Amino acid sequence: MTYLEIKVPLRWADIDGYQHVNNAAMLTLLEEARIAAFWASDVVAEDPGDGAGVAEGAGGTGEGDDAEARDAGHPARRTALLEAGPGASTLTLIARQEVEYLLPIEYTRVPLTIRMWISHIGGASIDVSYEVLLGEVVHAIAVTAIVLVDAATGRPRRVTAAEREAWARHVAPPVEFRHRR
Amino acid sequence: MTYLEIKVPLRWADIDGYQHVNNAAMLTLLEEARIAAFWASDVVAEDPGDGAGVAEGAGGTGEGDDAEARDAGHPARRTALLEAGPGASTLTLIARQEVEYLLPIEYTRVPLTIRMWISHIGGASIDVSYEVLLGEVVHAIAVTAIVLVDAATGRPRRVTAAEREAWARHVAPPVEFRHRR
Amino acid sequence: MTYLEIKVPLRWADIDGYQHVNNAAMLTLLEEARIAAFWASDVVAEDPGDGAGVAEGAGGTGEGDDAEARDAGHPARRTALLEAGPGASTLTLIARQEVEYLLPIEYTRVPLTIRMWISHIGGASIDVSYEVLLGEVVHAIAVTAIVLVDAATGRPRRVTAAEREAWARHVAPPVEFRHRR
Amino acid sequence: MTYLEIKVPLRWADIDGYQHVNNAAMLTLLEEARIAAFWASDVVAEDPGDGAGVAEGAGGTGEGDDAEARDAGHPARRTALLEAGPGASTLTLIARQEVEYLLPIEYTRVPLTIRMWISHIGGASIDVSYEVLLGEVVHAIAVTAIVLVDAATGRPRRVTAAEREAWARHVAPPVEFRHRR
Repeated sequence: MTYLEIKVPLRWADIDGYQHVNNAAMLTLLEEARIAAFWASDVVAEDPGDGAGVAEGAGGTGEGDDAEARDAGHPARRTALLEAGPGASTLTLIARQEVEYLLPIEYTRVPLTIRMWISHIGGASIDVSYEVLLGEVVHAIAVTAIVLVDAATGRPRRVTAAEREAWARHVAPPVEFRHRR
Repeated sequence: MTYLEIKVPLRWADIDGYQHVNNAAMLTLLEEARIAAFWASDVVAEDPGDGAGVAEGAGGTGEGDDAEARDAGHPARRTALLEAGPGASTLTLIARQEVEYLLPIEYTRVPLTIRMWISHIGGASIDVSYEVLLGEVVHAIAVTAIVLVDAATGRPRRVTAAEREAWARHVAPPVEFRHRR
Repeated sequence: MTYLEIKVPLRWADIDGYQHVNNAAMLTLLEEARIAAFWASDVVAEDPGDGAGVAEGAGGTGEGDDAEARDAGHPARRTALLEAGPGASTLTLIARQEVEYLLPIEYTRVPLTIRMWISHIGGASIDVSYEVLLGEVVHAIAVTAIVLVDAATGRPRRVTAAEREAWARHVAPPVEFRHRR
Repeated sequence: MTYLEIKVPLRWADIDGYQHVNNAAMLTLLEEARIAAFWASDVVAEDPGDGAGVAEGAGGTGEGDDAEARDAGHPARRTALLEAGPGASTLTLIARQEVEYLLPIEYTRVPLTIRMWISHIGGASIDVSYEVLLGEVVHAIAVTAIVLVDAATGRPRRVTAAEREAWARHVAPPVEFRHRR
């Protein structure tokens, strides 16, 4: 299994009156990571592999790009298949989210590292698991269930064979929540 | 058990490019409901009981204010005990959240009804359960775990006897998630 | 001339790491006031005149509702003519904004009073002037230029006679900026 | 004169129900550009000059980095002097903003280019002028007046000689608004 890792910069406005990243802003940060990893891009990246792109880390090492990934020529693009922006053929609707905030995040200009993997592939949906890191320290964990919806009909549509294949090497068990009741 | 019900207006900026309330904005709406119900207010309300205030609904009926609640003179104030704004003695930190989005919410100027109850009172924390209604229809369900933190020490502090007593009549089992994996 | 006055509650997430209302959040607050005053509503208000509605203040007195306005039965509705939400016939696009922040606004659950008037009616646009008050104190002043766009064609459309008539009594010179360069 | 140019990525949540970047979100984007250019950074950039960093464009050419700037080794750092985050010695308060929205911005994953220069250096304040570009096309222009406030006293503090010197080569006349009334 290979992680998908995205660097997501905070914005000053993500900080609330407690001087931490607001709990709702955290979901916006996860959304940005998810879009970078899974939506087909309209970016002509001049410098793929830079901070704004998607890197793949070897599972469990936290080492950043692995050699295989690097050789394959920006392989993260392989996961970014969903034509899901406005006017596109697929909508990615959020069915559920679960987040545990382990440590408050103060304002920093160091981007967060959002490490993702796919913890379930269903008929018309996927679950994405996340670890949100600042440096090496996990500050939050989360899971999002995403339903793929056909924009024309408004109804769920099947995960395609191409998607399933592109995503297969990023599948692993879900992040373990510690405080579920 | 008596529900706490708060009307929360949407903002235009809560809508995203899919023309629905954004998944992260939903957590901001829950936050506003939670603050109205639990933070000691600095509002001198001229018209308690109006749309911006807290009503209490009889458990299970969805009828709005019950007679007992109304007689008691804006009883929701009884739950709003936490001195939790900036500079106050208690911080209310979010430890975890779980949300299921049942139906997309399009832009409307009809405020959402956020129906809350306390689904757990721990030593230094509470769980709040929510149903988010538009009209009579539940569009989302959620639970938030809130830790009470002493602002001076930065460490969790005990739920007080006064809080426990004020909140007791709003305690009920947690909302039942349908799609947990 | 009669002011349009809207009460707009802050949200906790409007506060940034300086523990003031963020400069961009202020524009969201103006947007909410503008929508309440000018967009035709889908709200069946049970209690018009409450905190979420529109009051009209006698020009220059800051006294709140004037008798004429009150007698007329929720007269602010007269200004709320624009069918401007998603799927509607008119888009209200923002062409320019100018804001002066006179005093920082700390978190409060007392809603802001946003006092508006129309400082220009053009062929296909209006300028709205604002004073943002907390209690009796003006904390910010602003002007927004709004272009009325035909949703079908995407091109500006004329201010109608009905709009011009409904808005006429709210026309006054623009707010005076103090620090233009 | 040399421009300061920052690439600022949109977020999905910046888009509102009209499917354009919301007018208030635009100010958040300007804020991010301003912080990147002027706040002393806590980022240890592994790859300065990448999309998240600051480039300098030769005035008027729109060509991107000029040779002098590139040779100087990340010269943009020279402008980023303000110790202005939470807990820092200076607060950068916004006194006024003026924005003209020339073209709506639809969702894109191509970052905006925010081109800045200093259009006034006062005793305790600076004005920043902006052009917001998507590709080569200016979509918005703006000016922000920033007051430097001593965090300890809460009062304006003088622009230092070091700041004045670092900023001098980025000084030019303000952007010209076309629709002031």
